Amino acid sequence: MGKKYVYYFGGGKADGEGTMKDLLGGKGAGLAEMTNLGIPVPPGFTISTEACTEYFKNKKKYPDGLWDEVLENLKKTEKDMGFKFGDPVKPLLVSVRSGAKFSMPGMMDTVLNLGLTEKTIPGLIKMTNNEKFVYDAYRRFITMYANIVMDVDRMKFEELLERKLEKADVESEADLTVDDLKDLSTQFKKLYKKELNQDFPNDAMAQLKAAINAVFDSWNGERAITYRKLNKISDNLGTAVNICTMVFGNMGDTSGTGVAFTRDPSTGENIFYGECLINAQGEDVVAGIRTPLSVEELKKTTPEAYEQLMEIYKKLEDHYRDMLDLEFTIQEGKLYMLQTRVGKRTAAAALKIAMDLVDEGKIDRQTAVMRVEPEQLDQFLHPMIDTKIKHDKLAQGLPASPGAAVGKVVFTAIDAERWAAKGEKVLLVRLETSPEDIGGMHAAQGILTARGGMTSHAAVVARGMGKPCVAGCGDVLIDKKSNSCMIKDIKIKEGDWLTINGSTGEVIKGETPLVQPKITGDFGKFMEWVDEFRTMSVRTNADSPHDSRVAIEFGAEGIGLCRTEHMFFEADRIQAVREMILSDSEEGRKMALRKILPMQKRDFKGIFKAMDGKPVTIRLLDPPLHEFLPHNNDKELKKIASELGVSLKKLKERNSQLQEFNPMLGHRGCRLGVTYPEIYEIQTRAIIEAAVELIKKENDTVVIPEIMIPLVGHVEELKALREIVVSTADDIIEKNKADIKYTVGTMIELPRAAVTADEIAEYADFFSFGTNDLTQTTFGLSRDDAGMFLPFYVDKKILLEDPFVAIDQNGVGQLVKIGIEKGRSKKTDLKVGICGEHGGEASSVEFCYNIGMNYVSCSPYRVPLARLAAAQAELKKQGQGESTTK
Amino acid sequence: MGKKYVYYFGGGKADGEGTMKDLLGGKGAGLAEMTNLGIPVPPGFTISTEACTEYFKNKKKYPDGLWDEVLENLKKTEKDMGFKFGDPVKPLLVSVRSGAKFSMPGMMDTVLNLGLTEKTIPGLIKMTNNEKFVYDAYRRFITMYANIVMDVDRMKFEELLERKLEKADVESEADLTVDDLKDLSTQFKKLYKKELNQDFPNDAMAQLKAAINAVFDSWNGERAITYRKLNKISDNLGTAVNICTMVFGNMGDTSGTGVAFTRDPSTGENIFYGECLINAQGEDVVAGIRTPLSVEELKKTTPEAYEQLMEIYKKLEDHYRDMLDLEFTIQEGKLYMLQTRVGKRTAAAALKIAMDLVDEGKIDRQTAVMRVEPEQLDQFLHPMIDTKIKHDKLAQGLPASPGAAVGKVVFTAIDAERWAAKGEKVLLVRLETSPEDIGGMHAAQGILTARGGMTSHAAVVARGMGKPCVAGCGDVLIDKKSNSCMIKDIKIKEGDWLTINGSTGEVIKGETPLVQPKITGDFGKFMEWVDEFRTMSVRTNADSPHDSRVAIEFGAEGIGLCRTEHMFFEADRIQAVREMILSDSEEGRKMALRKILPMQKRDFKGIFKAMDGKPVTIRLLDPPLHEFLPHNNDKELKKIASELGVSLKKLKERNSQLQEFNPMLGHRGCRLGVTYPEIYEIQTRAIIEAAVELIKKENDTVVIPEIMIPLVGHVEELKALREIVVSTADDIIEKNKADIKYTVGTMIELPRAAVTADEIAEYADFFSFGTNDLTQTTFGLSRDDAGMFLPFYVDKKILLEDPFVAIDQNGVGQLVKIGIEKGRSKKTDLKVGICGEHGGEASSVEFCYNIGMNYVSCSPYRVPLARLAAAQAELKKQGQGESTTK
Repeated sequence: MGKKYVYYFGGGKADGEGTMKDLLGGKGAGLAEMTNLGIPVPPGFTISTEACTEYFKNKKKYPDGLWDEVLENLKKTEKDMGFKFGDPVKPLLVSVRSGAKFSMPGMMDTVLNLGLTEKTIPGLIKMTNNEKFVYDAYRRFITMYANIVMDVDRMKFEELLERKLEKADVESEADLTVDDLKDLSTQFKKLYKKELNQDFPNDAMAQLKAAINAVFDSWNGERAITYRKLNKISDNLGTAVNICTMVFGNMGDTSGTGVAFTRDPSTGENIFYGECLINAQGEDVVAGIRTPLSVEELKKTTPEAYEQLMEIYKKLEDHYRDMLDLEFTIQEGKLYMLQTRVGKRTAAAALKIAMDLVDEGKIDRQTAVMRVEPEQLDQFLHPMIDTKIKHDKLAQGLPASPGAAVGKVVFTAIDAERWAAKGEKVLLVRLETSPEDIGGMHAAQGILTARGGMTSHAAVVARGMGKPCVAGCGDVLIDKKSNSCMIKDIKIKEGDWLTINGSTGEVIKGETPLVQPKITGDFGKFMEWVDEFRTMSVRTNADSPHDSRVAIEFGAEGIGLCRTEHMFFEADRIQAVREMILSDSEEGRKMALRKILPMQKRDFKGIFKAMDGKPVTIRLLDPPLHEFLPHNNDKELKKIASELGVSLKKLKERNSQLQEFNPMLGHRGCRLGVTYPEIYEIQTRAIIEAAVELIKKENDTVVIPEIMIPLVGHVEELKALREIVVSTADDIIEKNKADIKYTVGTMIELPRAAVTADEIAEYADFFSFGTNDLTQTTFGLSRDDAGMFLPFYVDKKILLEDPFVAIDQNGVGQLVKIGIEKGRSKKTDLKVGICGEHGGEASSVEFCYNIGMNYVSCSPYRVPLARLAAAQAELKKQGQGESTTK
Repeated sequence: MGKKYVYYFGGGKADGEGTMKDLLGGKGAGLAEMTNLGIPVPPGFTISTEACTEYFKNKKKYPDGLWDEVLENLKKTEKDMGFKFGDPVKPLLVSVRSGAKFSMPGMMDTVLNLGLTEKTIPGLIKMTNNEKFVYDAYRRFITMYANIVMDVDRMKFEELLERKLEKADVESEADLTVDDLKDLSTQFKKLYKKELNQDFPNDAMAQLKAAINAVFDSWNGERAITYRKLNKISDNLGTAVNICTMVFGNMGDTSGTGVAFTRDPSTGENIFYGECLINAQGEDVVAGIRTPLSVEELKKTTPEAYEQLMEIYKKLEDHYRDMLDLEFTIQEGKLYMLQTRVGKRTAAAALKIAMDLVDEGKIDRQTAVMRVEPEQLDQFLHPMIDTKIKHDKLAQGLPASPGAAVGKVVFTAIDAERWAAKGEKVLLVRLETSPEDIGGMHAAQGILTARGGMTSHAAVVARGMGKPCVAGCGDVLIDKKSNSCMIKDIKIKEGDWLTINGSTGEVIKGETPLVQPKITGDFGKFMEWVDEFRTMSVRTNADSPHDSRVAIEFGAEGIGLCRTEHMFFEADRIQAVREMILSDSEEGRKMALRKILPMQKRDFKGIFKAMDGKPVTIRLLDPPLHEFLPHNNDKELKKIASELGVSLKKLKERNSQLQEFNPMLGHRGCRLGVTYPEIYEIQTRAIIEAAVELIKKENDTVVIPEIMIPLVGHVEELKALREIVVSTADDIIEKNKADIKYTVGTMIELPRAAVTADEIAEYADFFSFGTNDLTQTTFGLSRDDAGMFLPFYVDKKILLEDPFVAIDQNGVGQLVKIGIEKGRSKKTDLKVGICGEHGGEASSVEFCYNIGMNYVSCSPYRVPLARLAAAQAELKKQGQGESTTK
């Protein structure tokens, strides 16, 4: 006896069971499980995924014994049902459906009514006493078979149908006569022959074999391969084939078909939520021609079946311990279950269901935590477009910062501030944003840019602010002169209303109503559970007391990245910064910097206070100095020159001196600190003096400043700068006899830093991986310019994901791993975190946990997501909790 | 008995010998060796480097027994000489000199006449019967001791001397009277006391101890530490101290002092080459006050000593088997050798001496090959400034491409071409160059740029052309309007003569005469020897038949990098390229590309023919498309728009669409091939059709095209593009039934490519490391912008070398190693080379050899250098040949 390839289900018992998804696919395992549970399932059998694998190994030949097994199981089915496949008197009809382990678009769909032939039609007519039903089924079957099994364009059949409707002068297919349907069947078979140069198979067994082959072959169809690649599903899994006795929901008013969720998939409420159509086949539900009714309707038409359905769904849910998505058909009052699987749900529902199931004692907390997808949490934290209202999508950009925003369009940051000051809601539309636009971005409801990717300036800053943003929308052409823009063919003038959906990247015309999702008490409780299982810390990237407070509300345990450049841009200090830039001497620069000192100190005090004893990692100045001067704007330059008391010529000279070909790879980060040590010295002074003064003023306050040197590529850079920081800090601490423990660490954001991390670790108390820049340098890819080709790359599947969204584990991730290993080889207890955008993306958070990071840091609004992802990573590693199988 | 710390030499026998450089330092070993050879050396002793090491270990205390040993050896010296240190009657004077294993600037210099005190002066006067000599020696000794041992500013003594000369109303120190010198000594001692708050030591032993300490301490002086760091010399070596009996060359006309080379250090000619001063001390030679005479002069004054010197130099050269640099003193007719070491020499001399020594049977060829420094070979290949003629250095830039150039200044590439066409020699001065300037660069004698580093466009292209270039000379301020520039305070107008020295970075005013070094037959023969020992291949970076021929003459064994972008810039095709860029459709782009096909084919044929069967690695298009359009030049843009028949608006739109924030990290390299596959397809077509046509035309021709995909970061890029190349190439080969073996490989120039090289190797026949870009991305450092801070970095010793000049072995090199290891883990015989600028730098070539590369590739003019460096790397690894100890 060879290998077993076919698994029967029927008569209250199945060869397989629910756990055998690998072998039977999701659908087959569900059918087997339901059968074993004594739930009425039309009998049938599943051809295993192994058979499929063998089929491809054997150059598309069935493995030995497979066909015999099929025939044997078909006989069992016939026996269970009392019908016979291909029989002229009591013909058995079957459905054939694919069923891989993971639900996969691109795989072969369902073929219903298989077994209908000229031979079996008379028997079926006799059995059903319904000629019209049979010919209607036949013409549908020909279409389905031709289209799904033989790949003939469905439209060609639709055209013939249209013509028939016209000729018969009726509106609906239901009004066609038996003769019409008969004639249509004949026409369809002719078309089939014309298209395929062969007759429509009149032999049930030939139909079955062809359908099985089509399912197998669809496993290696182009769309399926692409999908697997995208979702990292192995090509070797294969698909199962489910052959199942047909039951008919379209046999009159005591028949029907429906789909149901065991709980409300939108709210999670524990109520059975289903829709059905009376006297209809599954196809009709999909087609959406008739409006479905609530399942409650079945109480009236088939009360027994309804009661049974109620029992079954409870039984199934108890069994699967999750909300399920069910398919059923009622044939002349008798209920059949056709499918069960875990149901898709909204974030709110996912949360409520998971928590309710814990309350009901059905799952443990670990499982509840595994059941909510981290990315879903985003839905809790941002206003959304009301999906019930239709809207005009104008264009598509990148979903750069989630949430929706509505406002009147303005094209400059200054206008945004000005209009907002007058109480207007504005939407800032820019070619791209720069640090000068911060004020305007704050003032705007949301930001739309024509250029830049997911980690462009606009995207990063917007996410940091929790402000919706659509970036890199190439269809937006801004015309500065007329203060308007064209989006495709639509002209949008300053002041016109525009809506963006930062969660999807959509740009929508006009003022679209928004809904504000509520953070319910459930959410808070759920996050408490999350933290029970989480071991890796979650910090936030925050530059202001306000952001710090928001982040703490979201559960941040510290600041992982406090950028200081914004502190240089504020209106009250930018002039001093420019003075510094224009100064020719160290003394001149120091004088200018001393003007900023008290203001920066105030900033740091505010942040330290908000963080209340939690660690605050402060990155010293990072951007190139030219970002602090306006470019090519003579008017502005003139103003600045006169304010600073220098000649316009000098200002322009300095400006052009500072210009760079590749600012990303230029004079920035610690290179500024090396060439202008006074900048880092003053920043250190501001940090430590702020800490000292806060502690003196408020007695019990604890401040934990972690000073971070950016863009280190060579240990000597860190060594030199650490000396400056330490001597400055120690001097202040000593003079004030203050009790402050500070640390000095570095960002690892250059490949060279990663591969020489052992050397660097000797001078670093901590590492923070800046994976935005590390991704740029590792790929040699500017995030500002990638918009020109990165979408094309993802489209062509050269890159499966935007590496600025999810960390490229194989390339960038490898350098991160090397960096951690080398760093800890010299300093075993080296604290390591991440502060790139990846710190707020679930798969990246899991990666960070797995390679041993101590914390991730992300924008305030992504903190809950990161907490959940970190908890799940931990549970996964410990084998605790069951995640939802998709 | 403890450790031996002091080694005696004298009386024909020394405790040490010449091989003990580690212990005795270079100088001490030389003195010991000469003594053992029976050569007259004033007796004395060497304190070992171990004593110095112990001294630092013991917190600057002498190790046990050291001082006793010093005293003991001093006694031996006294005995050998018949004098006594510090003795009032027959006082012994000594010199104290440092002597580390490697000659090191920053170490303590010589102190002569040590032992002169108020007590010993009368005795010495009696002995020499020369009071003036003694007081002259005394005032010199005070100055030296104060300056060198006690670190008092020498100028303070010089001032007193000046005043004395004025007061005495004489021109020269020699004209001072005994009383003048006595008075000066008194003044000097007063100054000494004032400066140091202590009396000038009147005790010979105290002087000796202080001098020894000063030598020890100088080992850890700032300059010495820096020098060791720069030259990678261990801090633990320590320095030796040489205490040597004073002999006096200033005791009359039968005394003298001199330095000599055993062969001519300029030409290498086998003639004794020396200079001497009669009646003088070593100091006077250094001071350069008197013009030295030829050693021949000694024939007249001290014929015996002269003859002895002739014998000694031959003996020493035979012994050391190398050209030596000697120091000697003749005291009243008696010759003393004071130093022997391997002599510095020019390239020509190095070559000639090494080859002569082989002919003379003194060294083997391996040693000869080790004796010439690769960088020296550059001197053979470029015209040089005649050093005999004085010149006005205006400014200093980077020595970007060696050789000197003289020409009339022009400020645009077009002018360069126009003037050159009229027969003018021009020097192209630009802010920076771009690919559009190629024509002008070709036409110019040399290039001077105000911006950009050692691997800027100007530098790379100039080196490729063998054209002198000084880059990044920040003092050059170009004023476009007036067609002139300011270099510091000097205005240079169009047409003014200017000279640059690309070997040193000097910018010189006016028309400086140049000398053309000759490539003698020796050079060719030497390079044959080099190739005998070399195993790693040397290829060249060449883009034209002319460059290819030059490179072959220099010994290139193939082309490692043929850039194709220049083929897009030539006047006859740039229009078609622009047409392609402006086309909106693939078909339009293809049409434009087809126009270029025949011309590119012609280019490739020329190169294939020139390379005559040697492999030619052709890199497909790499630069971003915007480089092919002029920027911000309305006139030019208008002209182009009308030529192409498009609106100026469209041209400008496309131009701005193509603009990038970080072009280095933008839409270039294989990203062009992925988005516009037609470009790579047509290039492949041009390459393979050229090969096919050449083979058909000339029967015995062999063509080995190696098609190289640039900037691959992800295996899928290479996979997709390889498919295009292979299907295009195979189609042509099949149709023509041609016998062409081509390969397809990739550049590894991104960190991601290096760390995923195992994946990439599966689709690559070869790897070529593009270490220019790899350095940029690994460091996160734009070579075009690094000029702002990289010099500062090197200056501050944060980086010891410009990583664009010598490969950063620790960082970039580590990634190269990882890349090779991972690549070969999948494909054992993977061919690996380098085509970055580092391929022509000696230490980098050695690194490439050591990590197992198959070849290096460099610009034609550096091929000989690379060949020599490769041979030396091989010999070093095999322990063959002796290199010159510096």
